[in-house]
Amino acid sequence: MTKTLRSRSHGHFQGTWILLLSLFLVPLAYASGGGNADHFANLFLWIAVLLIMAKISSLVEKIGQPAVLGELVLGVILGNLALVGIGVFDPIKADGIILFLAELGVVVLLFQIGLESHIEEMKKVGVRAFMVAIVGVVVPFGLGYVAGMWLMPGMDTNSYLFLGATLTATSVGITGRVFRDLNKLQTREAQIVLGAAVIDDVMGLIILAVVSAIVTTGVVSTGDISLITTKAILFLVGALFLGQLLAPYIGQFFSRIHTGVGMKFTIAISFCLIFAYLAHFVGLAPIVGAFAAGLMLKPVYFSRFDEPQIQVPIERAIEKADEHTKCEVKRVLDKHTEHHIDRLIEPLGHFLVPLFFVVTGMQVNLETLFDPKILGIALVITAVAFIGKLVAGIVAGPVNKYIVGWGMAPRGEVGLIFAMIGKQLGVISEELFSVVIIMVILTTLLTPPILNYLLRREDKRANQKA
Amino acid sequence: MTKTLRSRSHGHFQGTWILLLSLFLVPLAYASGGGNADHFANLFLWIAVLLIMAKISSLVEKIGQPAVLGELVLGVILGNLALVGIGVFDPIKADGIILFLAELGVVVLLFQIGLESHIEEMKKVGVRAFMVAIVGVVVPFGLGYVAGMWLMPGMDTNSYLFLGATLTATSVGITGRVFRDLNKLQTREAQIVLGAAVIDDVMGLIILAVVSAIVTTGVVSTGDISLITTKAILFLVGALFLGQLLAPYIGQFFSRIHTGVGMKFTIAISFCLIFAYLAHFVGLAPIVGAFAAGLMLKPVYFSRFDEPQIQVPIERAIEKADEHTKCEVKRVLDKHTEHHIDRLIEPLGHFLVPLFFVVTGMQVNLETLFDPKILGIALVITAVAFIGKLVAGIVAGPVNKYIVGWGMAPRGEVGLIFAMIGKQLGVISEELFSVVIIMVILTTLLTPPILNYLLRREDKRANQKA
Repeated sequence: MTKTLRSRSHGHFQGTWILLLSLFLVPLAYASGGGNADHFANLFLWIAVLLIMAKISSLVEKIGQPAVLGELVLGVILGNLALVGIGVFDPIKADGIILFLAELGVVVLLFQIGLESHIEEMKKVGVRAFMVAIVGVVVPFGLGYVAGMWLMPGMDTNSYLFLGATLTATSVGITGRVFRDLNKLQTREAQIVLGAAVIDDVMGLIILAVVSAIVTTGVVSTGDISLITTKAILFLVGALFLGQLLAPYIGQFFSRIHTGVGMKFTIAISFCLIFAYLAHFVGLAPIVGAFAAGLMLKPVYFSRFDEPQIQVPIERAIEKADEHTKCEVKRVLDKHTEHHIDRLIEPLGHFLVPLFFVVTGMQVNLETLFDPKILGIALVITAVAFIGKLVAGIVAGPVNKYIVGWGMAPRGEVGLIFAMIGKQLGVISEELFSVVIIMVILTTLLTPPILNYLLRREDKRANQKA
Repeated sequence: MTKTLRSRSHGHFQGTWILLLSLFLVPLAYASGGGNADHFANLFLWIAVLLIMAKISSLVEKIGQPAVLGELVLGVILGNLALVGIGVFDPIKADGIILFLAELGVVVLLFQIGLESHIEEMKKVGVRAFMVAIVGVVVPFGLGYVAGMWLMPGMDTNSYLFLGATLTATSVGITGRVFRDLNKLQTREAQIVLGAAVIDDVMGLIILAVVSAIVTTGVVSTGDISLITTKAILFLVGALFLGQLLAPYIGQFFSRIHTGVGMKFTIAISFCLIFAYLAHFVGLAPIVGAFAAGLMLKPVYFSRFDEPQIQVPIERAIEKADEHTKCEVKRVLDKHTEHHIDRLIEPLGHFLVPLFFVVTGMQVNLETLFDPKILGIALVITAVAFIGKLVAGIVAGPVNKYIVGWGMAPRGEVGLIFAMIGKQLGVISEELFSVVIIMVILTTLLTPPILNYLLRREDKRANQKA
């Protein structure tokens, strides 16, 4: 508490510093250009600037908000400075290397969330997660279809179909990050949302295939649909069961080559990347693969590898201590060893994850908010989007249904992908596209503070009961 | 020792596994293409494949070689499989994102080497390093000029000038990695080589400017040369002195926003990236900036940040222990805290550094070795390249002169950049370019095993004396 107060008194001072820092760094990044070496060196500076700014934006924590909100808002600001004539950040938005690092960032984030989740806990909430996913697909789809017909009459039926499909998406990245920022990943609510989001991704894949088939050929080929479904389910089953079966042997095999920290890290990150690739290969989002990879990697598979570097020196230091101390220290060291993979991946997360959220924020085009008619329609569609997922929360069982419902709400990049495909197929008009984008922006930006409020209220209640 | 023997008995088994693994992974990476999402997903797989293969190549350690040699040779093999009809690895060589990650890798490596070096130790060997750098520039330049005239008579004088200039380069990445692999960074020899390589980079910059001016305008503008020199020296002085002055305040300022591990990591990596950028900005190699950044960051600047996560639980666990145990544990924990930044950067190194060396190996085109006449000339030039740097070792003072001399030998990418500029200016012919490339390949690939041999022999001697 004292920390918060002390920090607040420095608020003005910090604001000035941020400005000075930006004034100093931005012209530097702007100064050179052309050539691979120049491009790479500029990116070094840009990455440093974005990372520092992202960390400064974590000041939102002082007003009780999750850090991810700060990064998203920072991104929205940087990405729209061109509206007031500052175009210096625009090249970053479209830079292939930055976009890759951002994508790698969300893959690493879901891998971390997978590592911190327990597959047994996930299984316990499996049925509930499945129900939440089903309702969270059916209700937004139906509501979106009807709301589309009501608000924008006279369009092709396929357009309403696609609008409905767009509303079914769930972007687990945002919610997962909020749960993680607030240290709530282990709650039943978080586990249900994570499970439902994975199932949602599979269902979204099927819906996209069905809707696309209706639009392009007018008929739905059951063969195609069942092939897509089979591939996705086979991947998930294969990843979770075969992966768990094989992972110990992979650990065993590589420990024969080397048992150092580097090997442990390499196996973990390669596991993550290969499953991200495989998920994309069967048509799922790479983050679903990364999450599955994190779920199936357990510390026990790495038992043949070297312990964290502190283990041996500490054990040597307590050799002459009493039994009680030895026992206590052993408990701490065991816990430290158990989470060693998480800690090895963490720095990579610190490097890449903020880039994802800042870049995601940068993709938001505030100009779409300027047309009052579109904005009005979009606000209703956004309300429909929230209601659809809140209804899904009702079937989540004996947990805080609001947390589950709001947790499912952000559409993020998944909703955008749906809209983009619809635009390519010619069923989503410019106007409808703007509506969808505003809906995605609002569900993405409003969820962190609301979820934050709900989680803290839940904490308070639990404290009052105890 | 038992570990080595046990692993050797598994050698055949491992070979089969590597083959199976490659057979399984490569077609997967080959299967898809087109589109940003496909490209990114493919890169996930490629990075995983390269990292796993790089770790498997660390089997060279079992025959007493540094891991970097395995990575380089792996790269040479992968990059030249096209010669036997396997072109599957060729897209990686030219992929902008992979090249960026590789460049970021060598920047992170030099930052790590900087973190592990002590500025006081560097200052102690400063004069020696300066002499080694001077001799290591003058002698190879003169020898290269003369050898060029002797072996390839009738060319333009400027061509001999450029050949000489190419031979002055020192690629500190290779040598630094060998010293690091063998845990020899703290030796006086390593410190002299690192210092000399930094000075060499400044002198190389001046030489390149002079030689380019002679080639393009026929005259050398003293104004230009002194501007370049001043910029480079100002940067180094500024980085080392001003950086040391400012770093504590930067740590202090950011600790007001957040004192977590993420902030600590962000400051460290941003420092590294900004100095890499600034070095490039003044015309030096980015790695020189990264090295300087590592040198100036000291754990004490981070004293306001949270301790490593194990500190508090361990301290709590030993509360009731005797004074001796407490004192011993405190010593271990202090050492752990002191190296906390190194350990935070380490996973990023495990992710990126192998990519640099594998990709460097991939750039080697073995076809250049097929012309016997060029190969003959190249072998003599390579010998000259080695001799030139070995002579530099003589002035290194009371240390193992061979280690210093061989440590300066690899030309790596620095030599290639010189040659490429010469080619663009039209003074380096196709033939001369091939000669230079072979020289770069040989000085780069032969140095790790030779240095490895010398360092181990030195160890043996020291043991016999003791």
